[in-house]
Amino acid sequence: MEFGLEQTIALLVRTPAVLDTLLRDLPDSCVLQDEGENTWSACDVVGHLIHGENTDWMPRAKRILEFGESRPFEPFDRFAHKEKQSEISSMPQLLDEFARLRTENLVHLRALDLQPEDLLRRGLHPALGIVTLSELLATWAAHDLTHLHQISRILAYPYRDAVGPWSRFLGVLHCAGHSAASYRSGNE
Amino acid sequence: MEFGLEQTIALLVRTPAVLDTLLRDLPDSCVLQDEGENTWSACDVVGHLIHGENTDWMPRAKRILEFGESRPFEPFDRFAHKEKQSEISSMPQLLDEFARLRTENLVHLRALDLQPEDLLRRGLHPALGIVTLSELLATWAAHDLTHLHQISRILAYPYRDAVGPWSRFLGVLHCAGHSAASYRSGNE
Repeated sequence: MEFGLEQTIALLVRTPAVLDTLLRDLPDSCVLQDEGENTWSACDVVGHLIHGENTDWMPRAKRILEFGESRPFEPFDRFAHKEKQSEISSMPQLLDEFARLRTENLVHLRALDLQPEDLLRRGLHPALGIVTLSELLATWAAHDLTHLHQISRILAYPYRDAVGPWSRFLGVLHCAGHSAASYRSGNE
Repeated sequence: MEFGLEQTIALLVRTPAVLDTLLRDLPDSCVLQDEGENTWSACDVVGHLIHGENTDWMPRAKRILEFGESRPFEPFDRFAHKEKQSEISSMPQLLDEFARLRTENLVHLRALDLQPEDLLRRGLHPALGIVTLSELLATWAAHDLTHLHQISRILAYPYRDAVGPWSRFLGVLHCAGHSAASYRSGNE
């Protein structure tokens, strides 16, 4: 096991509060703005995190523990939140829903009382093949951080001209996201 | 003016609380860890933000308003916080100091009661040449976001192997920072 489960949970616990502190009550112009065609706003990102809480992390952890490699995960649709936007549309509602689901999921995760041997158990990802429970939980935390990284970039986007010659010193203005092309169109 | 001053202040106000929520009481292994040789830890980043509050943003704004282009800014030393680390070393102390200074600086910024014509006033950067007050204030907010972007990357660093095959979907694990080489060794 290459990461500590308690450290991972410490990060997972924080994400809803971090996003709440950063995004609640920001003007709509900030939270609805994206980075151009086919990119996401901060609202889209929180919607995507909500979808992950509902369908990705804990459902997949349970599938590994129940079925091992014999039954692959359901594919995770990265764009499902786009269909949900008519149901939950304001940032405060999105933040409340994300915090509620994350709290519930971490209660369930702790209740599993995972032991080192459980973390080595293997499951079947529909695109990536064999993965372990340890890798899934590490990915949950790193996925939060990928989207915090993305939100900092989205919020900086309106400043790319306004900063004038300082632009070269501001790495966030020159970030294009780094995820594999398959991520942009595929599922996780 | 290509950005709203109130929107910029809304971001600047949030940064200390966002970093506090993300970093306070995380294990030392998280906040002291860096990304390898000649890179920064989260503690280094907060130390750097403190140094900016003390010597960069408001001192430069005041210099523009008092001296215009006739007197260049003092160079900003990106590595000054390394010398200060013996004075303030724990993350809670760093977060407290950053929050205190940011609050003071925003009180001073609001007290200037800047008008649109003030934002067009010009100053002299020792390396970049002519800059405007508007550009300086936009850079202050974008600089916060650059370092939030960096901290999300630093915290994700220990997960780069632990996530297994999911790595390709996690952009934060593939980010190298994007700032110009001159930034790494020079001053802002």
